[in-house]
Amino acid sequence: MESIQNFCENKITREAIHHIPKSNYSYGYDKDTLHLRIKTKKGEINKAELRIGDPYDWDKGGCDGGNMNSTGGVWTGGNTYPMRKEVETEYFDHWIAEFKPPKKRSRYAFILEGKNEKILYTEKRIHELGTKDDMSILSRINDFYCFPYLNNIDVPKAPKWAKDTIWYQIFPDRFNNGDSSINPKNVMPWGTEPTEHNFMGGDLRGIINKLDYFLELGINGLYFCPIFKATQNHRYDTIDYMEIDPALGTKEDFKELVEKAHKKGIKIMLDAVFNHMGYFSYQWQDVILNGEKSKYKDWFHINKFPVVDKPFEELDGRNLNYETFGRTPLMPKLNTENKEVVDYLLNVAEYWSKEMNIDAWRLDVCNEVDHVFWRKFRERVLLANPETYILGEVWHDGLPWLMGDQFDAVMNYPLGDAIKDYFITNYIDAEKFKYMINQISVNYPMQVVESTFNLLDSHDTPRILTVANGNKDKVKLAFLFMFTQVGAPCIYYGTEVGMEGNQGMGQEFHRRCMIWDESKQDKEMFKFIQRIISIKKEYKQISSVNIDWIQAKKDSDILIYRKENITIIINNSNDKAEVKLPEYLKNSKGKDLFKLENVELTDKLNLNAYEFKVILN
Amino acid sequence: MESIQNFCENKITREAIHHIPKSNYSYGYDKDTLHLRIKTKKGEINKAELRIGDPYDWDKGGCDGGNMNSTGGVWTGGNTYPMRKEVETEYFDHWIAEFKPPKKRSRYAFILEGKNEKILYTEKRIHELGTKDDMSILSRINDFYCFPYLNNIDVPKAPKWAKDTIWYQIFPDRFNNGDSSINPKNVMPWGTEPTEHNFMGGDLRGIINKLDYFLELGINGLYFCPIFKATQNHRYDTIDYMEIDPALGTKEDFKELVEKAHKKGIKIMLDAVFNHMGYFSYQWQDVILNGEKSKYKDWFHINKFPVVDKPFEELDGRNLNYETFGRTPLMPKLNTENKEVVDYLLNVAEYWSKEMNIDAWRLDVCNEVDHVFWRKFRERVLLANPETYILGEVWHDGLPWLMGDQFDAVMNYPLGDAIKDYFITNYIDAEKFKYMINQISVNYPMQVVESTFNLLDSHDTPRILTVANGNKDKVKLAFLFMFTQVGAPCIYYGTEVGMEGNQGMGQEFHRRCMIWDESKQDKEMFKFIQRIISIKKEYKQISSVNIDWIQAKKDSDILIYRKENITIIINNSNDKAEVKLPEYLKNSKGKDLFKLENVELTDKLNLNAYEFKVILN
Repeated sequence: MESIQNFCENKITREAIHHIPKSNYSYGYDKDTLHLRIKTKKGEINKAELRIGDPYDWDKGGCDGGNMNSTGGVWTGGNTYPMRKEVETEYFDHWIAEFKPPKKRSRYAFILEGKNEKILYTEKRIHELGTKDDMSILSRINDFYCFPYLNNIDVPKAPKWAKDTIWYQIFPDRFNNGDSSINPKNVMPWGTEPTEHNFMGGDLRGIINKLDYFLELGINGLYFCPIFKATQNHRYDTIDYMEIDPALGTKEDFKELVEKAHKKGIKIMLDAVFNHMGYFSYQWQDVILNGEKSKYKDWFHINKFPVVDKPFEELDGRNLNYETFGRTPLMPKLNTENKEVVDYLLNVAEYWSKEMNIDAWRLDVCNEVDHVFWRKFRERVLLANPETYILGEVWHDGLPWLMGDQFDAVMNYPLGDAIKDYFITNYIDAEKFKYMINQISVNYPMQVVESTFNLLDSHDTPRILTVANGNKDKVKLAFLFMFTQVGAPCIYYGTEVGMEGNQGMGQEFHRRCMIWDESKQDKEMFKFIQRIISIKKEYKQISSVNIDWIQAKKDSDILIYRKENITIIINNSNDKAEVKLPEYLKNSKGKDLFKLENVELTDKLNLNAYEFKVILN
Repeated sequence: MESIQNFCENKITREAIHHIPKSNYSYGYDKDTLHLRIKTKKGEINKAELRIGDPYDWDKGGCDGGNMNSTGGVWTGGNTYPMRKEVETEYFDHWIAEFKPPKKRSRYAFILEGKNEKILYTEKRIHELGTKDDMSILSRINDFYCFPYLNNIDVPKAPKWAKDTIWYQIFPDRFNNGDSSINPKNVMPWGTEPTEHNFMGGDLRGIINKLDYFLELGINGLYFCPIFKATQNHRYDTIDYMEIDPALGTKEDFKELVEKAHKKGIKIMLDAVFNHMGYFSYQWQDVILNGEKSKYKDWFHINKFPVVDKPFEELDGRNLNYETFGRTPLMPKLNTENKEVVDYLLNVAEYWSKEMNIDAWRLDVCNEVDHVFWRKFRERVLLANPETYILGEVWHDGLPWLMGDQFDAVMNYPLGDAIKDYFITNYIDAEKFKYMINQISVNYPMQVVESTFNLLDSHDTPRILTVANGNKDKVKLAFLFMFTQVGAPCIYYGTEVGMEGNQGMGQEFHRRCMIWDESKQDKEMFKFIQRIISIKKEYKQISSVNIDWIQAKKDSDILIYRKENITIIINNSNDKAEVKLPEYLKNSKGKDLFKLENVELTDKLNLNAYEFKVILN
């Protein structure tokens, strides 16, 4: 009954209002600036305002505490500021305001104006406004939310270079063989069908030899799957974190790679596999051999001794005496609550950051390692190199790692999934797609989103062209969209020359050898990727977090969005289409950033199947 | 239009559903147990279920990653478990389930059944259930929320003793003078009207002399306002953190106090004033004297040199060259982002925890100090004494400090405020009160709530009897309620003998001298407090987090609630009332835990104004 009444009176839906202190709704954007967000039921709020001020500004008393009101004083610190609608998602309007607290301290609440009422939304209760009592309600400071002090050290910060990086991911055994003298045993000829266990002989020299290739493509960041000593071709089963795998080269080779890459403006990111160690590491072998007497027994999670009672080949991942990554006997899980393990791994991280001068760490399976460890990791690594970018492998909501104390970013699989759902598999329509992209843009503090790591495929997924069943037009649209978003995009080696892999092609095909035979490379795809990279670099506005959705409808395959003065028009369909241009474009002159030619627009545009336009105007 | 349709079809209000990973909605309760909560619009959901399982359980493939589905495998890890309705608040039903993930890993979603539909609520989207597609929806693991690994080190844990403690707060200058030989200069006769600056001569010997008084009352924890060397009677302007203020005694006296208290089963909590230092500390004086050349200049937040250009007495708190606590020139804010300051303060904490064997720290203005500092503080203090209780002074939502990495609890002012709003000022009715108490009980992980620190007054508030305008019956009801809740209650010295203070009585009256003249003590209040302490200690069920609200209505002053087999019946009114007893009590026999007599109940009870019953049956 109450609900019907509320509904008919156009009351604001209280249940739909969300705000959480010290989260993606409330954080320091920089040392002087707070961001405060709130979400409300879509379409209900005409005007949202932030009521905020210093808790110690009272007309009398209160100065030295602000918590009590025993002297009869009144809190006078609050002022009202407008909030802007940041984005719209399926069920919500999202509002944001920034505020620079003069003394770094704030208490705040939200004034929400609906069709028939105005409320003050506070931490403790909801007050109705619009009576003569408003001023006394607005001074009820104890009801208010609190951002007690904007401490710079708590503000999430990525290094400046992170957001301007175009990453390229390399699976080292499969990229390029530059030194056959260090080929692994039983190396297979380049291009052989990949299996779980074979090696192709890719190495560091092969990468050094291709530095100009990277420049030609336009990338300025290299992300390597593990390069430390291990037994498998993926090298996620580390044997020794302090050594380069001999089949890849030496530390001198790696130093040379880092130096030469740096000279060309290319950053280097290594993969830190700290969740687990390799079965054939010295430490785990010692546990197998010495059991309870091993000095490494507390380095792992052991349920029963002996940890292993049969040959490795006969072990069953579902029935082990020790904990592992997944169900993989090869990867015993490290006990990162053990101080010795922490010290060991932090020394490893410090060594490669400091002595080897790397720029970034990608943290493998980091979500299964404790937060205490990652906080120490951040502190130690930033001490070694304050400009390090720390990227977590988190596929789900990463906020618990992204509030400034652990990582700078996580691998933005949710973005890649949304792009695939819309452009590749058509699982969602343009409207749902818009809502998902908008949601992703407010899931984290804004500066985290600005430094995010975007990707469509990786060594852990099928290649994008395979997901698209070989439809290159779809792949291009997916890349176009990713490159016209906020964040640093990553290209998985070979995708730029049209490589396919996985999904019905054998489990390991996404880790195939890079195709260097130019006659087998897709030159058009290469040029396409080259071009979007160069657009991303030249037009910074395209990387803005703000996206202006001009058209994204349930019942149309035409998607139009704008990043400041650049409009992207996409026909996400197998049919050609006539697009009615938005008012601001009609009969205007612009520049086609792909064809690099001036265009004179009329009131409509004809697009072929999967055709797109990027127009500067 | 859509809304009207949804409303008429009895659809579940999507906007009202809240769940947040790694928060009070999702946390480790202990090393084996996850708690997962969700809230939904009140009255809408008939049945809530948790869908949860190990991400690496697939019918084929998936084992070693679980993130991709390239081999065509299906995730089979999920199972369905019931959730129970934990509490009801003004707008929401709150649901909870516990789950013990066999391999510590979980992905999960929520199955919510409304009147006309059933949905799966996941991290990425909401799916409608009830079609033949349900099984494929339930295996869409990438949509699910994730609790990647239950790492014990991340689980919030307070020492076991914390939840069984009855605290007593002492303002040292005003409790008892036991050694007149160390009286401060110009000490005033005991009982003189307190001012901002006068001293009464309370000291450690005076406290040691009263240990039996504490036992008589029943308390087993002493919480001291600062005892370190300082200039003011409140001693929040620390001069030397390594020294006991000479007017309080010596380190030997303090050691004796700790030892004797421990022998009597009484814990000791000190006040850590680490947000700011005293103006007359050596370090700050050095900055005043040597300006930019002072080696302590980076210990503080200085906007301009010279930091001080006039005598202390002439300084204006609103116009200073340095940052302070509040607007208080006496308290220059410490720069806890400076490693030297961090080292200094952590050494201080370690010293008193380790060498002086204290049991707990209460952290003054801790919300204005950075989180990085408090994480280090926790680590260092627990290393010195793993059984330490860490209590933050946070008046607002404390969750950002309570996820296991910083504090065990915060001062539960929101509970005290709700109690005052209902029992003392009648600002809210019984129904609103119930909703507030319920909200407070789910604001934090359950184990944090179990170890919370409850209070009605302190050195920072008016005394409760004064808030009640001297109405002792109201004060008793407030205490009765606080003592029959989860958590560790605290009594502010003197409240147990009916002391009043503040609000129109002069700003410092809440810090009056303790009344030791028995003829001036309220003996009845003492006996009342003594009795509720003894009930709290004897009947553990009264401290359960679960509260069964039997009657809490908008339009009645009768409040009835039950903690297992104990029922509390309160007439929160100035009029007498006839109470209809709940079915389970009608015509039953029980025991009146206050009068300590057996009672035979009929179907009703007559209560005088503000009368209450605590009945075991």
